[in-house]
Amino acid sequence: MKTKLAIAAIASTLAMPLLAADPFSPYVDDKGQISLPKNFRSDFVHLGSWAVTDDKSAARGFHDVYTERKSLDHYRKTGRFPDGATLVKEIRQLETGPLTTGNPVHWAGKPAVWFVMIKDWKGRFPGNPLWEDGWGWAMYKADKPLENAAASYKADCQACHVPATRTDRVFTQGYPLLKH
Amino acid sequence: MKTKLAIAAIASTLAMPLLAADPFSPYVDDKGQISLPKNFRSDFVHLGSWAVTDDKSAARGFHDVYTERKSLDHYRKTGRFPDGATLVKEIRQLETGPLTTGNPVHWAGKPAVWFVMIKDWKGRFPGNPLWEDGWGWAMYKADKPLENAAASYKADCQACHVPATRTDRVFTQGYPLLKH
Repeated sequence: MKTKLAIAAIASTLAMPLLAADPFSPYVDDKGQISLPKNFRSDFVHLGSWAVTDDKSAARGFHDVYTERKSLDHYRKTGRFPDGATLVKEIRQLETGPLTTGNPVHWAGKPAVWFVMIKDWKGRFPGNPLWEDGWGWAMYKADKPLENAAASYKADCQACHVPATRTDRVFTQGYPLLKH
Repeated sequence: MKTKLAIAAIASTLAMPLLAADPFSPYVDDKGQISLPKNFRSDFVHLGSWAVTDDKSAARGFHDVYTERKSLDHYRKTGRFPDGATLVKEIRQLETGPLTTGNPVHWAGKPAVWFVMIKDWKGRFPGNPLWEDGWGWAMYKADKPLENAAASYKADCQACHVPATRTDRVFTQGYPLLKH
């Protein structure tokens, strides 16, 4: 019995770190730190793209947006993203040139920035400036993919998403899979 | 024994239609007719996009290219698409406007045309004008998604793909997943 209890105690101790963290997202730790998903291009579903050809814009580039297949399926059933849904927007340098399809044609070159949003329906991180308006917000520059370069949602993220307030801060007009 | 033989004969008859068709692609029948995959946006991996903003081009639009996950994985290991690999290029109307990211920004509207390529390393359909240069070729207009509108590779497909001859007729420079 003593051996069995000891094994049970060890098993319980080993399991604790897994149980302690809220498992709602594999990209969020228990302090609300968000990490950039790896392999999102091949593991996630592509929702849509934006080609920002404006020479004067800091966001000039090819923007591609991805989410998990299960998050897409949930959205198509319910009209909203599930708790823990991940959106990744990859911004790559704009390549432009003549191709057999026309001139100009624009496509995506080297990565520049990644934006990540994590859906949070429970208000898990009150007081954390990167968790507001129902989402966790993050930005990673290509040369520092492990460091969230956003300091606060209000300062670094909110303004750009105001026009999409009625669609939960997501620009759904560019994501036809969400319309069906 | 007679009963067993009869069952075997029936089983053999039932299995024949399945065995007769080459199962290399679920989108190709035994005469080489190609059909448009359903749900490729959510079931396939997104390889890349092209924004053809040229006002004078018949191909003006947002072009998105997809393939199967298993075909992508094979390409990344071997540097070429496997037998039966499917490429879908969806061309949608170009939506253009000012957004918080810049002006102009381009994104994808209603579908206009789908192009499909099926990799064939075995030369399965000699004499079929839609199977040449190692691929089967198809084109579907949005109002007739069940009818291959291409009559022949040479007349309807070849010219646009000449610049990509060295990369097996695929414009890999726009598909960063294929570079790794």
